[in-house]
Amino acid sequence: MDHTSRAFDDELLGLTSRIQEMGDLARHLFENAITALRTGDVSLGQRAVHQDLSIDQMQIEIEDLAILIIARRQPVASDLRHVIACMRMASDLERVGDLAKSIAARVTSENNALSQMAISSSLKRLAAAVQKQLSRVLIAFDRLDAEAAEAVRLGDVKIDELYNALFRELLTYMMEDARSIGQCTNLLFCAKNLERIGDHATNLAENIQYALTGRQPLAARPKGDTVTGLP
Amino acid sequence: MDHTSRAFDDELLGLTSRIQEMGDLARHLFENAITALRTGDVSLGQRAVHQDLSIDQMQIEIEDLAILIIARRQPVASDLRHVIACMRMASDLERVGDLAKSIAARVTSENNALSQMAISSSLKRLAAAVQKQLSRVLIAFDRLDAEAAEAVRLGDVKIDELYNALFRELLTYMMEDARSIGQCTNLLFCAKNLERIGDHATNLAENIQYALTGRQPLAARPKGDTVTGLP
Repeated sequence: MDHTSRAFDDELLGLTSRIQEMGDLARHLFENAITALRTGDVSLGQRAVHQDLSIDQMQIEIEDLAILIIARRQPVASDLRHVIACMRMASDLERVGDLAKSIAARVTSENNALSQMAISSSLKRLAAAVQKQLSRVLIAFDRLDAEAAEAVRLGDVKIDELYNALFRELLTYMMEDARSIGQCTNLLFCAKNLERIGDHATNLAENIQYALTGRQPLAARPKGDTVTGLP
Repeated sequence: MDHTSRAFDDELLGLTSRIQEMGDLARHLFENAITALRTGDVSLGQRAVHQDLSIDQMQIEIEDLAILIIARRQPVASDLRHVIACMRMASDLERVGDLAKSIAARVTSENNALSQMAISSSLKRLAAAVQKQLSRVLIAFDRLDAEAAEAVRLGDVKIDELYNALFRELLTYMMEDARSIGQCTNLLFCAKNLERIGDHATNLAENIQYALTGRQPLAARPKGDTVTGLP
């Protein structure tokens, strides 16, 4: 970024660091939600639910800041793309926070039994894979690294596979033991939310690429969010 | 809207009519998805899935148009709010399209049996209530009517109640007959998507109010998207 106006540079850097801050918050909320789900820690779950408020607030502030920059500086080319990408990323990070909050809100003391369930290893594997995607895309943004973003984009297929396997596994448990249906349904929604967080990691990656190269995110990207051929 | 520049007026009107057009498309996709689900019409479901592509494309165009207006006209006060509200509404309508697409993609010929299932009346009731919210919020936008938008905002509680009742009903079916678990799980996700479309109708209503009155949407609005105390 090479501008005559020093103030403009500062504004762009400020916007970028707000996104980084928001990304850290979203990742932290996500980690708390997952830990709460794994351990059945209801009070940690409640704290995670509460953390989502600051993420929502931050999205509004970032949107305001981006609009102010557009109106005042009338950026063009890569600067304009950077500002637009930041707005879109704030929207994706808000959704990540929202979905992680939904997972956290589902934590009940019942989940204490989760560690005893055979399903827990598949769920943990999915959660770990999503967490990795989220971490990697935030690092790609820190470094403005289009190749790292591409690796995240390609990594979503793995998430979809893990989700589909977990989905089938949960159905099997429900069929074997009707008493598990309540809890398994709860976990089904958690799994779906994890898969969606993975989609937003992909969106974030595509917006990093848009900022750097101008390539618009593909509208028709397959999202793998539908399980067909149910058992 | 009272401006010295006629061209500016035209641009704002153009943006508004693009949102109306996008709203009509989203409503149409939604109606196709619901009809396909009710009748088990797989090919209508596939058409609805395809319709979502134009909605995604339209969101990108609306975003571009809004940014162009902000950069070129530097609108302030209610004009700026109107442009921002349009951008946010495009994002909500894109989500509505996406969720309706997910419902449409779940339609299988199995759903032919849906009309024979006792659950169908509850599901139809939820779908009809969400459809009403969506229609009403689009009319509120056509008329720029803050009171009508408020009625939609308040109407979301009803949706949440219908969803929670349907959720419990589906669990009961699964517990009674393990063979229904596959199909009921599918319907659970459809129900969840309907409930989320209801949330987006509320977001749309709040953004109409924001455009007209400057009141920011409440970040902490209860979303009722978590069922506690599972049977």
